[in-house]
Amino acid sequence: MLKELMEHEVGEQVDLFLLVKSAFRGVASNGKPFLTLILQDRSGDIEAKLWDASDSEVKAYQQGTIVRVAGEVHNYRGRMQLKIKKIRRSNPQDNINVGDLLEKAPISKDEISSKVTQYIFEMKNPNIQRITRHLLRKYHEPFLEYPAATKNHHEFVSGLGYHVVSMLDLAKSVAELYPSLDRDLLFAGIILHDLGKVIELSGAVAASYTIEGNLLGHITIIVNEIGKAAEELGIHGEEVVVLQHLVLSHHGKLEWGSPKQPMIKEAEILFLIDNMDAKMNMLDRALKHVKPGEFSEKIFPLDNRSFYKPTFHS
Amino acid sequence: MLKELMEHEVGEQVDLFLLVKSAFRGVASNGKPFLTLILQDRSGDIEAKLWDASDSEVKAYQQGTIVRVAGEVHNYRGRMQLKIKKIRRSNPQDNINVGDLLEKAPISKDEISSKVTQYIFEMKNPNIQRITRHLLRKYHEPFLEYPAATKNHHEFVSGLGYHVVSMLDLAKSVAELYPSLDRDLLFAGIILHDLGKVIELSGAVAASYTIEGNLLGHITIIVNEIGKAAEELGIHGEEVVVLQHLVLSHHGKLEWGSPKQPMIKEAEILFLIDNMDAKMNMLDRALKHVKPGEFSEKIFPLDNRSFYKPTFHS
Amino acid sequence: MLKELMEHEVGEQVDLFLLVKSAFRGVASNGKPFLTLILQDRSGDIEAKLWDASDSEVKAYQQGTIVRVAGEVHNYRGRMQLKIKKIRRSNPQDNINVGDLLEKAPISKDEISSKVTQYIFEMKNPNIQRITRHLLRKYHEPFLEYPAATKNHHEFVSGLGYHVVSMLDLAKSVAELYPSLDRDLLFAGIILHDLGKVIELSGAVAASYTIEGNLLGHITIIVNEIGKAAEELGIHGEEVVVLQHLVLSHHGKLEWGSPKQPMIKEAEILFLIDNMDAKMNMLDRALKHVKPGEFSEKIFPLDNRSFYKPTFHS
Amino acid sequence: MLKELMEHEVGEQVDLFLLVKSAFRGVASNGKPFLTLILQDRSGDIEAKLWDASDSEVKAYQQGTIVRVAGEVHNYRGRMQLKIKKIRRSNPQDNINVGDLLEKAPISKDEISSKVTQYIFEMKNPNIQRITRHLLRKYHEPFLEYPAATKNHHEFVSGLGYHVVSMLDLAKSVAELYPSLDRDLLFAGIILHDLGKVIELSGAVAASYTIEGNLLGHITIIVNEIGKAAEELGIHGEEVVVLQHLVLSHHGKLEWGSPKQPMIKEAEILFLIDNMDAKMNMLDRALKHVKPGEFSEKIFPLDNRSFYKPTFHS
Amino acid sequence: MLKELMEHEVGEQVDLFLLVKSAFRGVASNGKPFLTLILQDRSGDIEAKLWDASDSEVKAYQQGTIVRVAGEVHNYRGRMQLKIKKIRRSNPQDNINVGDLLEKAPISKDEISSKVTQYIFEMKNPNIQRITRHLLRKYHEPFLEYPAATKNHHEFVSGLGYHVVSMLDLAKSVAELYPSLDRDLLFAGIILHDLGKVIELSGAVAASYTIEGNLLGHITIIVNEIGKAAEELGIHGEEVVVLQHLVLSHHGKLEWGSPKQPMIKEAEILFLIDNMDAKMNMLDRALKHVKPGEFSEKIFPLDNRSFYKPTFHS
Amino acid sequence: MLKELMEHEVGEQVDLFLLVKSAFRGVASNGKPFLTLILQDRSGDIEAKLWDASDSEVKAYQQGTIVRVAGEVHNYRGRMQLKIKKIRRSNPQDNINVGDLLEKAPISKDEISSKVTQYIFEMKNPNIQRITRHLLRKYHEPFLEYPAATKNHHEFVSGLGYHVVSMLDLAKSVAELYPSLDRDLLFAGIILHDLGKVIELSGAVAASYTIEGNLLGHITIIVNEIGKAAEELGIHGEEVVVLQHLVLSHHGKLEWGSPKQPMIKEAEILFLIDNMDAKMNMLDRALKHVKPGEFSEKIFPLDNRSFYKPTFHS
Repeated sequence: MLKELMEHEVGEQVDLFLLVKSAFRGVASNGKPFLTLILQDRSGDIEAKLWDASDSEVKAYQQGTIVRVAGEVHNYRGRMQLKIKKIRRSNPQDNINVGDLLEKAPISKDEISSKVTQYIFEMKNPNIQRITRHLLRKYHEPFLEYPAATKNHHEFVSGLGYHVVSMLDLAKSVAELYPSLDRDLLFAGIILHDLGKVIELSGAVAASYTIEGNLLGHITIIVNEIGKAAEELGIHGEEVVVLQHLVLSHHGKLEWGSPKQPMIKEAEILFLIDNMDAKMNMLDRALKHVKPGEFSEKIFPLDNRSFYKPTFHS
Repeated sequence: MLKELMEHEVGEQVDLFLLVKSAFRGVASNGKPFLTLILQDRSGDIEAKLWDASDSEVKAYQQGTIVRVAGEVHNYRGRMQLKIKKIRRSNPQDNINVGDLLEKAPISKDEISSKVTQYIFEMKNPNIQRITRHLLRKYHEPFLEYPAATKNHHEFVSGLGYHVVSMLDLAKSVAELYPSLDRDLLFAGIILHDLGKVIELSGAVAASYTIEGNLLGHITIIVNEIGKAAEELGIHGEEVVVLQHLVLSHHGKLEWGSPKQPMIKEAEILFLIDNMDAKMNMLDRALKHVKPGEFSEKIFPLDNRSFYKPTFHS
Repeated sequence: MLKELMEHEVGEQVDLFLLVKSAFRGVASNGKPFLTLILQDRSGDIEAKLWDASDSEVKAYQQGTIVRVAGEVHNYRGRMQLKIKKIRRSNPQDNINVGDLLEKAPISKDEISSKVTQYIFEMKNPNIQRITRHLLRKYHEPFLEYPAATKNHHEFVSGLGYHVVSMLDLAKSVAELYPSLDRDLLFAGIILHDLGKVIELSGAVAASYTIEGNLLGHITIIVNEIGKAAEELGIHGEEVVVLQHLVLSHHGKLEWGSPKQPMIKEAEILFLIDNMDAKMNMLDRALKHVKPGEFSEKIFPLDNRSFYKPTFHS
Repeated sequence: MLKELMEHEVGEQVDLFLLVKSAFRGVASNGKPFLTLILQDRSGDIEAKLWDASDSEVKAYQQGTIVRVAGEVHNYRGRMQLKIKKIRRSNPQDNINVGDLLEKAPISKDEISSKVTQYIFEMKNPNIQRITRHLLRKYHEPFLEYPAATKNHHEFVSGLGYHVVSMLDLAKSVAELYPSLDRDLLFAGIILHDLGKVIELSGAVAASYTIEGNLLGHITIIVNEIGKAAEELGIHGEEVVVLQHLVLSHHGKLEWGSPKQPMIKEAEILFLIDNMDAKMNMLDRALKHVKPGEFSEKIFPLDNRSFYKPTFHS
Repeated sequence: MLKELMEHEVGEQVDLFLLVKSAFRGVASNGKPFLTLILQDRSGDIEAKLWDASDSEVKAYQQGTIVRVAGEVHNYRGRMQLKIKKIRRSNPQDNINVGDLLEKAPISKDEISSKVTQYIFEMKNPNIQRITRHLLRKYHEPFLEYPAATKNHHEFVSGLGYHVVSMLDLAKSVAELYPSLDRDLLFAGIILHDLGKVIELSGAVAASYTIEGNLLGHITIIVNEIGKAAEELGIHGEEVVVLQHLVLSHHGKLEWGSPKQPMIKEAEILFLIDNMDAKMNMLDRALKHVKPGEFSEKIFPLDNRSFYKPTFHS
Repeated sequence: MLKELMEHEVGEQVDLFLLVKSAFRGVASNGKPFLTLILQDRSGDIEAKLWDASDSEVKAYQQGTIVRVAGEVHNYRGRMQLKIKKIRRSNPQDNINVGDLLEKAPISKDEISSKVTQYIFEMKNPNIQRITRHLLRKYHEPFLEYPAATKNHHEFVSGLGYHVVSMLDLAKSVAELYPSLDRDLLFAGIILHDLGKVIELSGAVAASYTIEGNLLGHITIIVNEIGKAAEELGIHGEEVVVLQHLVLSHHGKLEWGSPKQPMIKEAEILFLIDNMDAKMNMLDRALKHVKPGEFSEKIFPLDNRSFYKPTFHS
């Protein structure tokens, strides 16, 4: 199999199909336009420069285009950069799809779907079970395809579902160690906590914020949806308000966007599990390409810290 | 007319019907129980001590009871305290109702109702008008009776409606000076912004927080209600999300309980008008009994500041 | 009438007299100098590039020069940029003055002057009236010409006077709704609150901070001036200290540059009115060129928020 | 078996052996001294009053004394209080030991010891294993007896060892779900992270801070100990510094007492696991005596929040 | 010589003339009033209780009265308290003055005066010298008598002058080590920095805040005075603004009451020297009665820290 | 003597030996590489551009190389920049050493060494003296050569020793004015407080952080060293813990990297003296090249303030 983009070292030649993640046109000091492209495959992305770009080139290599690129990786101020030598748009004979170049969750949509379904199936409280199943069915497709965020963690295809499955498995272990936890409530809270993202974000790929996402946010969106679901299903028990509270408070603090702090044990634990899974994902991805004895790049959402990879093994 | 409770000075005799706002039982050093009562009429409240209280007295003077009290006001560590000399429960012949002893808004429920109705009547955008009218009708009674808060500002009978009317009048003046403002949107936001309090709080008198109020809060409650109202009325325009945003963001900052900051001009202005009316109410009440040349007590929600009343007049 | 600078869209040709707001010289990779100019008319400003600039061109197009420019607007990384095709300095025959290219308050200096004079005329407290009139006369000319700030809000010719007039009108409405306010004190506080800027800033156009402005700030400057005015006028009443306090505390919080928080009701209201008028000005200007259904650029002094312009109308 | 102290309701008679947790002498208004005692058994503690206490009684009932008390539970301002009717010191015939009246971990010292030993036994990295085993042997006795803190969480006999065992079990589950974690490092960090408390605190019961504890703190103490252990064992690998870093950074943030934030993945996860186990312990204890449909008391270290116990079950 | 108040240990008898620093009337559970007095001599103060106080006693022992008291020191909840056995007002024959019972600076007013005068005498810059001398002469008497604060540090008779002299001596040493410092400017800044306190505070003894002190604060007051002094002396050099800046910025940060941060080297150093002298004073006084091997009480303005006195000597 | 680098004004010709502090390779818009060099001598550093750099030039002018450069200083966006006309590597005949081009402390290593030795010699407490002498001997060489920091203050050769000597002299003056201070403890704390930097940093020149420095930090490193020294010397007195506390707490606050705040008087004073000496160093260096009547550049560690140099002299 071919070496992927991020497996190349400085000085190596690249010849790959890549997706244009973004494209900016500049005017150089000789008056001629040039293109700054961010090119990606599923291993990551790199900045690339196309000098003396013609107007037709500027139009050809826009965001979302698949291109075949030959060039060389060099080091620019400590970051890797790709100097383009040859570039062309892909054509049907190349047999490359956007999906081949996007990062994806390490498990398939089917696996995600069947794991979540199993967790719902095992619930004992019918009110919690019915609301959860109802909303998952309503948003089944985007739930399996959307990322969990536009950046920072799980920002890839099926990231949302993968994040939920990881949290469910972690929650199951936690609930075994601390048996006072209400498993149905905790699992339902996990399944629903970020489901509002399917309305907050514009799509599964290159997601941006919708108007509703900007003005209300995924927390308020899904809390409203839980209310509507309960009404449609004719459910009036305290489970409705408590489930809404779990979702409402899952950012943990007011200044992080939850209008209420957790006031129920399972809400507090949901917040902690969300936090732990997101951090594990960020750390694993940041350290993936770091060699033992070196530091990662600074990770902005982790207080801009660099992390060290020790030289010893256990 | 009789002097009201807070019009008495230190050293004066009191003989009034008063409402027991709260009651605590203590055991004194001689082993006998005593009662600490907070007694109020519509002018305010005072701490009172009933020494050597018998068990029947402890039972008789509980929260919510109307009593006739004779005693003397004295000064205890800088605060006024009432030393009870005689006390008895009121009886039907006294012809005193709880309503006579509660602080009320300075305008009647009818005035509030007709002013708000007029503002709704003049709206031109039918979507905004219909949602606002629908929700006001649904919660008409409690809207006219509830306080705007349990403490700090407008914490009296009809405080909610009175606060809304004051804000509407202020908003009308502001909109005349800054004509780019969307009046319908601003007025609707004002009418709805605190309406969730009729579910968040337990009642019009001696209000505490309901379970739903604690776990969701009045902002989330009314945002959900706007969504349901739009669905019931078959309204799908952008007005729904924008109106929800106005209510959602009216606390101005995440750390003050809004999960989104204002992102629409009228949302920002709604927040500022709410703030100004609440502060005017706090300041007027805090300075009411202060003499020229003296400072008020510290006002906790105003950063614990004391305010000075100048000696000159204009 | 000609289209103004900011009314041009990407791709359109520009041929206008413009003012050089600032000019930077760079050396391009071919070793030749180029100029980055910020060019403005009263509708706003734009970045422009002049490639291969000769030494005489570098000298000709310095800050404060009026130039005639032909070029084309294009989009550079999401911001508009002007590519200069032809440029020359204006000459007397062009009959263009700097004043024609600067943004100005929407009302004239005469209107500002007569409105403020009327507010002073109606004051009833002679001490407040005399101090206010004395200081306004002393700094009459710069008061009518200076901006209210170097950036963020009212940063245009006559911005200071216009800001004061808007605040006075707003204060008048507020005082009608809350009659306990001392109108003379509030109006005098508004007229004087930013008057120190005529010493803090270097002039009416392209203002920078003076040494005194940097080391003392406009608040301390005008508080000192009030003290001197009172002494010259032989006024000794409490009005002097109270008026100084209003000005001193009008930034509202210590960390925003007021050495005392407001401790007088009118001081608190002055702070709130200042805030509301400044925000209205920022919002109206930021949203002026935004189309319905789109977001404004981020507004730094409003917590770096973008504001949305709804698609519906009332 | 007898009802324990905290199982009594208001109005019930108490007749129990209790430990004097603290004792304060007051002088009542009749000039006679009285005693305020905090009395405890393993179920919790209660405030009690002994009126008209003689000098010999004041001396008899000091902190650490076991007493037999008869009295009645009543409600004082919302908290339970014990009115003492009869009290005497315990004597040898009563056959009561301090240990019988102290709260203990729910698992025995032997279980703690064997579980921790097993985790150490399974380590594969010899440097990590040897340092951990060395320090655990050195402080074996106090490790099994000390509390994990003087208040807030695990503040009971064997609390330290119990906290470590809970964290180890949780870490094991986490490491199974996220296999990139270095288990030896994580487990060693958990075993050592709070071991400095055996020097920071004065003892297993009624612990206070030692001089060394106050001036250096348990983090610095154990980091020094790891350094010394490595030197004594002749270990020089990177494991020493990395292990010191895990302990050093386990409070997560500088303002929480760690002079470095976590910069190694296992350090970050150690911090999160510590946090989760501490919060579960606080929540379970706070909610233990709360009835469904009610709120707990405010929990200070959890931002002073009250937690609600739902009425439904799963 | 007699033992002073604070030299008494728990259990000892006291028989001293003391000053009533404050007096509160309480009503005990037997219905009789009692007095809580804070009594002081120059060594410090203590809380005392007078039970069953008659109305004439309540009137007799008010704030500012000198009394002769016999009683016993006992320990109440860890603090020393005085139980009064006998008390009477002092009479002329006792020959005791308030001044005998107040804490004073360790050096006399004459020494303070001559030291400060010497520092002014040695100044070389005539503008700085004349302004400083002018203001010191204007407020000579209160400068020598006032405290430097109402609490926290130098809160005793002549505390202001003593604080200034200590700072001058420290500044002299600093200026010798860092010769780039402008000595005249630094010394003048020190002499004037707190001089506004003679207007901010009500007097030398039992000082409270004046209206002007509350509304403007000592910083603004003295900055105004410097401006007036310069005007009266006909001084127009940059020294005036720079000296005002030093005083204005000497609290170091906006949130500590300086409307500008230091922007001149000597201003920054003045802030640091003020800080160091205040802290030394607080620490020396807090540790004065602490025994080696023990901790002081918590010192509120030092982040509520306790300080340890080591057991060893050098 | 030749003019040094920073003594050149814009427009002047430069012909000097300079050290390459750092070097970045860029690719210009004509496709050719260029070099951005930071060049320094002992007077400071400047950015320089070498256009059309060949591959051999890129290799020749790397960090740490000494070069001879001819060029011209010009102004680029308000900062000075050097346009390189001629450049070559230095050769042995040039007789230039790296040491000639590095900034150094104004006193020699010998002076530093003898001053510190004298302070240790005069200590009276043998435990403190022996630990201090032991550690100074152990790290004698790097102590005399290392900088005190990598940036902000004393970031030059022998900066660490020079900073310590300045602090010792300041501490001596302070101790004379406040005789209650324990001089041995304070002096020892000063000598040791930053000694951990000889392990935290990689070397005396172009220092970066070591792994141990990153993961533990200089505070923890030297606290461990004090513990080891005491053990090796067989010292067990309280001096060990107290000395460790002084070093541990010398950053003053938890959020600045001290895991404990100062709890001993000398610890607090050590923190203040460290702060004062660091700020004096920053201010003197920032103001060195500023002309009277102008402001310095913004100084990041001083809250990003600019400092003004007055026009008058004393």
